[in-house]
Amino acid sequence: MFRNQYDTDVTVWSPEGRLLQVEYAMESVKQGSACVGLRSNDYCVLGALKRSVSELSSHQKKLLEIDDHMAMGIAGLTADARSLAKYMRNECLNHKYVYGDNIPPAVLMSDLADKHQRTTQTYVRRPFGVGLLVAGVDPQRNSCHLYQTCPSGNLYEFYASAIGARSQSARTYLEKHYESFPASSKDELIVHALQALAGCVSGDDELTKENGSIAVVGKNQNYILIEVEELQPYLDKLEIKRNDDDDAEEEESEDAEAMET
Amino acid sequence: MFRNQYDTDVTVWSPEGRLLQVEYAMESVKQGSACVGLRSNDYCVLGALKRSVSELSSHQKKLLEIDDHMAMGIAGLTADARSLAKYMRNECLNHKYVYGDNIPPAVLMSDLADKHQRTTQTYVRRPFGVGLLVAGVDPQRNSCHLYQTCPSGNLYEFYASAIGARSQSARTYLEKHYESFPASSKDELIVHALQALAGCVSGDDELTKENGSIAVVGKNQNYILIEVEELQPYLDKLEIKRNDDDDAEEEESEDAEAMET
Amino acid sequence: MFRNQYDTDVTVWSPEGRLLQVEYAMESVKQGSACVGLRSNDYCVLGALKRSVSELSSHQKKLLEIDDHMAMGIAGLTADARSLAKYMRNECLNHKYVYGDNIPPAVLMSDLADKHQRTTQTYVRRPFGVGLLVAGVDPQRNSCHLYQTCPSGNLYEFYASAIGARSQSARTYLEKHYESFPASSKDELIVHALQALAGCVSGDDELTKENGSIAVVGKNQNYILIEVEELQPYLDKLEIKRNDDDDAEEEESEDAEAMET
Amino acid sequence: MFRNQYDTDVTVWSPEGRLLQVEYAMESVKQGSACVGLRSNDYCVLGALKRSVSELSSHQKKLLEIDDHMAMGIAGLTADARSLAKYMRNECLNHKYVYGDNIPPAVLMSDLADKHQRTTQTYVRRPFGVGLLVAGVDPQRNSCHLYQTCPSGNLYEFYASAIGARSQSARTYLEKHYESFPASSKDELIVHALQALAGCVSGDDELTKENGSIAVVGKNQNYILIEVEELQPYLDKLEIKRNDDDDAEEEESEDAEAMET
Amino acid sequence: MFRNQYDTDVTVWSPEGRLLQVEYAMESVKQGSACVGLRSNDYCVLGALKRSVSELSSHQKKLLEIDDHMAMGIAGLTADARSLAKYMRNECLNHKYVYGDNIPPAVLMSDLADKHQRTTQTYVRRPFGVGLLVAGVDPQRNSCHLYQTCPSGNLYEFYASAIGARSQSARTYLEKHYESFPASSKDELIVHALQALAGCVSGDDELTKENGSIAVVGKNQNYILIEVEELQPYLDKLEIKRNDDDDAEEEESEDAEAMET
Amino acid sequence: MFRNQYDTDVTVWSPEGRLLQVEYAMESVKQGSACVGLRSNDYCVLGALKRSVSELSSHQKKLLEIDDHMAMGIAGLTADARSLAKYMRNECLNHKYVYGDNIPPAVLMSDLADKHQRTTQTYVRRPFGVGLLVAGVDPQRNSCHLYQTCPSGNLYEFYASAIGARSQSARTYLEKHYESFPASSKDELIVHALQALAGCVSGDDELTKENGSIAVVGKNQNYILIEVEELQPYLDKLEIKRNDDDDAEEEESEDAEAMET
Amino acid sequence: MFRNQYDTDVTVWSPEGRLLQVEYAMESVKQGSACVGLRSNDYCVLGALKRSVSELSSHQKKLLEIDDHMAMGIAGLTADARSLAKYMRNECLNHKYVYGDNIPPAVLMSDLADKHQRTTQTYVRRPFGVGLLVAGVDPQRNSCHLYQTCPSGNLYEFYASAIGARSQSARTYLEKHYESFPASSKDELIVHALQALAGCVSGDDELTKENGSIAVVGKNQNYILIEVEELQPYLDKLEIKRNDDDDAEEEESEDAEAMET
Repeated sequence: MFRNQYDTDVTVWSPEGRLLQVEYAMESVKQGSACVGLRSNDYCVLGALKRSVSELSSHQKKLLEIDDHMAMGIAGLTADARSLAKYMRNECLNHKYVYGDNIPPAVLMSDLADKHQRTTQTYVRRPFGVGLLVAGVDPQRNSCHLYQTCPSGNLYEFYASAIGARSQSARTYLEKHYESFPASSKDELIVHALQALAGCVSGDDELTKENGSIAVVGKNQNYILIEVEELQPYLDKLEIKRNDDDDAEEEESEDAEAMET
Repeated sequence: MFRNQYDTDVTVWSPEGRLLQVEYAMESVKQGSACVGLRSNDYCVLGALKRSVSELSSHQKKLLEIDDHMAMGIAGLTADARSLAKYMRNECLNHKYVYGDNIPPAVLMSDLADKHQRTTQTYVRRPFGVGLLVAGVDPQRNSCHLYQTCPSGNLYEFYASAIGARSQSARTYLEKHYESFPASSKDELIVHALQALAGCVSGDDELTKENGSIAVVGKNQNYILIEVEELQPYLDKLEIKRNDDDDAEEEESEDAEAMET
Repeated sequence: MFRNQYDTDVTVWSPEGRLLQVEYAMESVKQGSACVGLRSNDYCVLGALKRSVSELSSHQKKLLEIDDHMAMGIAGLTADARSLAKYMRNECLNHKYVYGDNIPPAVLMSDLADKHQRTTQTYVRRPFGVGLLVAGVDPQRNSCHLYQTCPSGNLYEFYASAIGARSQSARTYLEKHYESFPASSKDELIVHALQALAGCVSGDDELTKENGSIAVVGKNQNYILIEVEELQPYLDKLEIKRNDDDDAEEEESEDAEAMET
Repeated sequence: MFRNQYDTDVTVWSPEGRLLQVEYAMESVKQGSACVGLRSNDYCVLGALKRSVSELSSHQKKLLEIDDHMAMGIAGLTADARSLAKYMRNECLNHKYVYGDNIPPAVLMSDLADKHQRTTQTYVRRPFGVGLLVAGVDPQRNSCHLYQTCPSGNLYEFYASAIGARSQSARTYLEKHYESFPASSKDELIVHALQALAGCVSGDDELTKENGSIAVVGKNQNYILIEVEELQPYLDKLEIKRNDDDDAEEEESEDAEAMET
Repeated sequence: MFRNQYDTDVTVWSPEGRLLQVEYAMESVKQGSACVGLRSNDYCVLGALKRSVSELSSHQKKLLEIDDHMAMGIAGLTADARSLAKYMRNECLNHKYVYGDNIPPAVLMSDLADKHQRTTQTYVRRPFGVGLLVAGVDPQRNSCHLYQTCPSGNLYEFYASAIGARSQSARTYLEKHYESFPASSKDELIVHALQALAGCVSGDDELTKENGSIAVVGKNQNYILIEVEELQPYLDKLEIKRNDDDDAEEEESEDAEAMET
Repeated sequence: MFRNQYDTDVTVWSPEGRLLQVEYAMESVKQGSACVGLRSNDYCVLGALKRSVSELSSHQKKLLEIDDHMAMGIAGLTADARSLAKYMRNECLNHKYVYGDNIPPAVLMSDLADKHQRTTQTYVRRPFGVGLLVAGVDPQRNSCHLYQTCPSGNLYEFYASAIGARSQSARTYLEKHYESFPASSKDELIVHALQALAGCVSGDDELTKENGSIAVVGKNQNYILIEVEELQPYLDKLEIKRNDDDDAEEEESEDAEAMET
Repeated sequence: MFRNQYDTDVTVWSPEGRLLQVEYAMESVKQGSACVGLRSNDYCVLGALKRSVSELSSHQKKLLEIDDHMAMGIAGLTADARSLAKYMRNECLNHKYVYGDNIPPAVLMSDLADKHQRTTQTYVRRPFGVGLLVAGVDPQRNSCHLYQTCPSGNLYEFYASAIGARSQSARTYLEKHYESFPASSKDELIVHALQALAGCVSGDDELTKENGSIAVVGKNQNYILIEVEELQPYLDKLEIKRNDDDDAEEEESEDAEAMET
């Protein structure tokens, strides 16, 4: 009821000490198609469901290369994500130019999170409407990392995670298996990612070489994107078990699809 | 009902994580007269229905030359489109001046989409009220591309697409035939474009050399515009089958016509 | 009903994808006294009804010289029109100074339309409340053109047109006769303009040498203004047939007259 | 009724295409005490009713010298008028400094009208609340001119005019006699001005040497102000006939008097 | 009733052509304690009632020195008055520095009035909430002047005036006697000022050497302030006759007292 | 009732000529714990009740050193007071640097009051929510002064004063005894301050060496702070008589305590 | 009820003299997981409950190193805290660069509190939504200090304190034992911190080496963080006594958890 008067301006606190506009922006992440991430000691793998606007269009890119050592998966507003990716690529270039080396993912992610935070404290911009999974290799410690951002400006490091529509099923899968991840090979990680993703496909659909995609970065592995034909061998290894118990709270809003990925 | 309080400011999220003002802007695209685009391996063709304000006026231009290698079709507010075209032509000139070559369409379209995105995140400007189909030839890969933008800042690559009033019928036509497009000749593509367009003409009207127009760019084909007398030979090849089942949700709003094309 | 919440800010889209403030601004054009324009191959003629604020005042100027080769007729807020005319004259001077030649009307009109468009996208200014008919001669192609602008930023090229209060009757006249215009002489065009204008005079009034005025530009004809005594010979050639079927939707709002012309 | 939502912001159009805030500002002119202006071929005369705040105060100045060749009469907010007069005097000085001659009144009035127009298009300032009658001599054509401005930015040239409270009676007088003005002598014009002014005095009052004032500029006549004792000879020539049929719509609002002149 | 929607923003006109926020600001002047001013040919005298916040505080200064030749009395918000006084002192210094002479009071008052006017036309500042009586000697004409400002930006020259709470009684006194002022001596003027002031004291109080104060400037008289013991001789000459018929419309608002003087 | 529409913006006048937001800010002063000030000819003493947030925290500082010759006591928002103190210390340093001497308290207080006034006239900042008692020694006249500021920008000089919660009792005490202050010794002043303060302690509490504090500046006395053990000897001289008749209008708002001192 | 109109803008005072938006921001601190701080003469210890977003994520950092001699614990919005920490680290670097020594914590905390205060006085930013406990060693006096900030800009020095959800139980524990802290050893302090923290764990949970963390700075002790395995020895010394009487007013809001730590 009285919620209303505190939820239309990002700089207004509700009486309970909450920023409702920021929470609404976080809802937009739940409407993007699912994206998963997981890592072993040597590799970091992202997987995403590409949505096709129509039969006639190419599938939307959901996994983006930031740099040789960093990849990004998105759930939410594609246009916001693209603008953030442009910012990140620029930072990577600047760092390389100044220091002659790849930017440590932790440094870039901290700057990115601050960029998010600022949109939650001033009234001139709205909070970003996108959640990111970022895979990166630290150039100094030679270690793999998986980060997750959210519109509030919060930043988490994960062993494995999933965001977007119907991602609860993927998180459940990852929680069951994540203890085996650190020692997994690259190919095993990819199959885990696809298996998790398979549970996020909406009711009438299926995970295929067309709508699935995988990105990998690793200690001695520059960014690669695995799609279409290259993806098929991995898909053949899946034991598909359709997820029938979709989490009700995360049902996809079809109306909003036009702006989401 | 409660929708109201979240839908008058572009920087305000609705509780469901949607930006309603952006969605309203997308409605304006559905009110412009139809525009179709399709491509073969060698050519990219745009077709549009020109609307005439009165018997006494020339028809409104719906297909614009951006550069030798790029053409643009519009559905929505003409004034917004014209201002975007001016921006794009300028970028083409700048790129040629700096690099001595045509700008790759993918680069320009990404900048254009970011320009759209910015209007959805700050409160000083409204989102653009126009959708674009852009045909272009990549100067480096010598390949043809068809892009579609929308007011949200989303950017899609298509094999074939149609936007604007009654464009559903055109999309249905294109989906039926698009598998034959890659190998089609320029003339075949033009006939396909006109056939698709014919289904978008409103009830009392017909596709004629006066209201139809075609633009072509290709690997070895600089921008050409085919109108009036030059269009007649292609129209003669059409097997007109009027589309009687107009999609109700896309019925044209006559009130708003004054601002649209 | 719910229209209300979307129609007080020019940067707010209505749920149907319309900009209601822009449409309201277009209403102001319908309240200005009528203005007509038509062209042959060699001449472009504008005609306007001057409104007199009182017996004691001079009639308001409705036709303005922009440059030797360009004339402007207005319907709507005079103050807005005067500020636009100042802008246009300045552009003409700048162009002459830089290029040593008259500005092509198409270039100036495109810039002018963009100036209109900008007022519809930012919240700091209101849309202009005036419609213009601009007659011009292209210095390079030596051809005559008639343009019409509207507060939305749309720009049309016309063979003949009429705007302002009771202009429907003039448009009907022009549509009946426009096929004969291209080959008409200057004097014939002037008589056509006056004949069209005669139908736009309000009920109790008449077209006279006092309230009528004509402007001409042409291939070998610099701007001339024909008023008062010079106008009488042309008026004598008219076969006045008062227009009794005024279009109801365009009846003049007397309340707003103070700000209009 | 619904008028309300469109009439509190100067940049908002009403659905009928009107700017209500500008029209409200024009109301303030009707509340100032009356001011008349008229001209012969050789002289331009302004007359005004001075309002006295109290017995103890000097009468408020209603006629101001702008330059040797220009005079200004005001009806409405004195504070706004004073700030405009300062602007005009400055422009006169600048013109003299740059060109070595008096500024042509038409040039200054056009700039002044644009200054008015700008306040009607942006939301940072309110429209001016004052109407002006400006008398001036054109230094090049050596001709006399009478201009009237209004808060909308409109500018009129008049043979004779009257603004302010109860000015309808003065306008009626001027319309009856204006045909004799062009050939009138300076003294005849002054008597006409006073006669017109006499009809604008409110019910319980009378035109006297204390509340009347006259300003004259002319071809060979620099600005002079005729007040108090100098005015008496002219007053003696009047045939006073009190105006008993005050126009109801213009009755003076006593509440607002404190801010008006 | 409907007044409400036009009276919260200083840049909004009411339908009757009034600026209600400016009128409200003028109310604040009526709540300050009274201040009177009067002048002879040689002297200008200001008198004011000082209000004491408590027994423990010094009385508030109501008469301020601007320069040797100028004094100021205030009614309304003291804080606003102090900030205006600082501005005026600065202008006096600047003028002396540039021209080597005292600033003519008319020049300073005109600038001050414009400073007031600006706060009534833009929305960034509120109108000042103070009325001033300013006494000054013109350095060129060697003449005495009494000015009164008001929040609207209006400026009046007075022979004698009174502002603030219960000042009607003082004005009545001054009107009765002002014809004798021009020839009065300094001491006579002071007694007149105190006599006028005596009628403005609130019911339970009395004019004493503690709450009364007098400032004088004159042709050969630099600013002097007469208070406390020096005031007693003048008070002894008064024939006190308490004013029992307080004007109801000016009764003092006790609530607002904290901010007023 | 209708109060509401004028009381949420500091730049809006109420119809009675009041600035309600400024008056509300003055309420915050009444909620801070009490602060008293008094002066003899040679000393100026401030006393304050320190509030302890919890047993575990140090008591909040209520008396601050501005410079050797100036002390400040606060009631209201501590954070606002701290920011003002920083400004004042800076001004003291600047003055010393430029003039080589202590800043006269009257000069600094006038600047400080203007700083308050500005927050009441523009909408970008809120009025300060703190009242100050400032004790200072004038370096030129070698005299002691006690000033009191308030959020409205008003500035008072006092012989003795008390502000904050339950300060009415202290003011009553001071009024009874202030005639003896001018000749009192430093120790006598301190005891008077404590005695006044004792009446401001809330019901269940008592004035102790923990919650009381005293600051002294004087002609030959640089700033000293007397707290805890040093305070005990003075407390021992008090004849405590608890104030049981708290003034109802000043009862402490416990809710707001977190932000106050 | 009427609260509503004063609580959506940080620059608006309520009629009671409160800033409700600032108070709402303080609510957000109560929703962060608990954080405790305490100090002996030689050491300052912070303890915090880390919240894990999921099994798959690392725990959120609640204790941050500012510099060798300063540590920070947070309760509230992590994103706000991170941005403040970045500011503080920068100030530490600047101070070291300029003065060659560690910044005194009191100096930095005062600047930080002013940074908070500014967000409560202008409308462009919202108040910060985080409370901080900052432990620091003064480089000049070689003394340990514990500070607590709050969104209002208030700053407290504490012997021991606890903030965040269910922190009342910790405060009760600290109040019981704080008299023994000054002489405690580092290890004793750590055990006290953990004992206090144990009472703040929510109902179904327990203090473990995974969710607990301790930071220490001291006179001769640079910043150390004690977590996971290093924490176990200290946990083994605890006598866990679950806190069953959670303070109702501080029950955790689960809804808001996503943005909090």
